[in-house]
Formats: sequence, C-alpha cells, structure tokens
Amino acid sequence: MAHIELPDGLPGILGPMAFRPETARPLNQLAEILLRGDSSLSRGERELIAAYVSSLNECRFCEASHSACAARQLDQGEALVSAVLGDPASLLIGTKLRALLGIAAKVQRSGRDVTATDIGAARKAGATDLEIHDTVLIAAAFCMYNRYVDGLATWAPTNPVAYHTMAQRLVEHGYCME
Amino acid sequence: MAHIELPDGLPGILGPMAFRPETARPLNQLAEILLRGDSSLSRGERELIAAYVSSLNECRFCEASHSACAARQLDQGEALVSAVLGDPASLLIGTKLRALLGIAAKVQRSGRDVTATDIGAARKAGATDLEIHDTVLIAAAFCMYNRYVDGLATWAPTNPVAYHTMAQRLVEHGYCME
Repeated sequence: MAHIELPDGLPGILGPMAFRPETARPLNQLAEILLRGDSSLSRGERELIAAYVSSLNECRFCEASHSACAARQLDQGEALVSAVLGDPASLLIGTKLRALLGIAAKVQRSGRDVTATDIGAARKAGATDLEIHDTVLIAAAFCMYNRYVDGLATWAPTNPVAYHTMAQRLVEHGYCME
Repeated sequence: MAHIELPDGLPGILGPMAFRPETARPLNQLAEILLRGDSSLSRGERELIAAYVSSLNECRFCEASHSACAARQLDQGEALVSAVLGDPASLLIGTKLRALLGIAAKVQRSGRDVTATDIGAARKAGATDLEIHDTVLIAAAFCMYNRYVDGLATWAPTNPVAYHTMAQRLVEHGYCME
C-alpha cells in the first residue's frame, strides 16, 4: 500500500502524478526533452541510461518501464538491455555509450564522484558537451524519479505485460499526454 | 573548472541552465511549484528541507543558496537554519517539521528507506498527505539538482554575499525568471 492515498489502479509514478498534477507537468516535460527531444543520442540510448540508473537505485518500476522503452527502440531489443544492465562495460555497445554509462553510474552515487578523467574518456570516445550534459542530467533526474516512486511506496506491477503496454504508449505518444 | 564549457561567470546551476535552456524551463518550474507554490508548508520551511537535503548530499552551492533563501523567510533566520542543518531533531522547530525532515533524510539515501513508521510519525504530528508528498518530492528533486550541479563540476562562489544576493532575488522574483 502506498504511503499516501493515491488514485486507484495507477502503477508507479502515475499515481503521485495524478495526485499532484501541478508537479506532474514539469516532471513529464523534463522526461520528454531529455529522453525524446532532439539529440545526437538515440531515444533508445537515452532510455537505456535511464533504465541503468533506475536499476542502480533498485527502483523496480522505473527499471522495468524504461527497460521496456529502451528495448522497443534499440535494434537488439531486450537482449541488449539485459546484457547492459548486467554489465555496463558490455562490448555489445560502443565506447561512447559505455563511457556515458560510466558517468551516469558516478552521478547515481554522487555528482561529486564524476572526475575529469571520466569526462576525458567520454570525450575521447566522441561524446560532445551536450551529450555529457544530458547524460549527467538524465542520471540526476532518475535519482529523483526513482526516489519519488519508491519514497511514496507506489505500486509496481509484477506482470511484464504491463510494462510492455506502458512502453508502447510512451514510445508512440511520449511523456506529455494530459 | 566545469566539466563542460559553460557560459562565463554564472555560479552553480545557473551555468548549465544557460547552456541548456530547454531543460532549465521544467527544472525551474518544478522548483517554483515545490518551494513557492500554494502550500500549507511555509516557503521558509520548504527551503529549509531543500537546504537540509543539499547539505546531506554535500552540495555546497545548493546548501548555501537554499539556506540563504530559508533564512530570509523564517523568523529566526540564519541561526535557525544553522541549528537545524547541524541537528534536524532540534527543538527549535515543531514536531511536524522534524518528522518531515526525517522523511527527507530517508529519501536522500533511498526512496526505499522510507517506512510506514516514518509516515505514521509525520501524520501523528499533523502532516497531511500533500505535505508528505511534497516533502518526498522536494527531497527527491534536490537529489537531482545537487547531482546536476556537482556532476558537471560547476563553480560555487565562496563569498557568502553572493548567496545573499541570489536569495534576495529568488525570494522576490522566484525561480521562473527568463
């Protein structure tokens, strides 16, 4: 049971977002820009960073829903997402994405853990300032979303179908439906 | 030096916000609603929660700027803010705010650390569901802002006057100036 009285039947972040639409609006706009806006990182890559940070925070709802969004938008689908969440140094992805996942993992622990060496490695692998900025902010933002979802003890469906259905809707329509 | 090339002379979060105005907009809107929108928690109390979480994350820029905003809007000013950041169980504040700071500290570590007992204590001290929701989201949001500021190694002024000046502007005009 959630810690506060939330509308019935809404999984994960959707419950508190329906409870407090004023804050839901900027939360959704931020996700829309970071995960789906114009970027030289693909939508699948950005969803993968979000899923990875959520897995580090052990937020099952966000991990499952963003894994499903990543899988839908990456060529190798679920197999790739599982492999990378299990081993972010997996050779299935390129050096740039590996370096960005390394930065995201540091941010998940503390922003203060990111070093000039981490940034240098990402830049050497071809990452631009904007890609580094967005990776830091995606990781930071998921440290927020994950805490919001779990800090209120929201309901996380156990049936994978629920996440596939959510991902299908998010991939088609985005985060800003109202 | 910041990890990416940011506009000159802008302290803390203002650098990356100027670098990426698209994401600055929802980030500022969220702060405006959470810290200054209609609420049964005073603006000073909400800034104090933000300053406290920032101190736990050791984000010096956010701790100093939100401490200054809290001090300006709380009767006992800086003395109270210092006392509470040093000891969040301080008897200088009421039981409800103490309980909410306890929840915020749990969220700072992990959303999963918040227990029904923590929520029960806050409710017994008079906290409403909306106050609990907003405390969880303020704490979660500052886990994002703090990581954004430090993950990019932004510049934090050392002169307290800089924070008083920022706080004066924020208290008067809010977070959504563009």
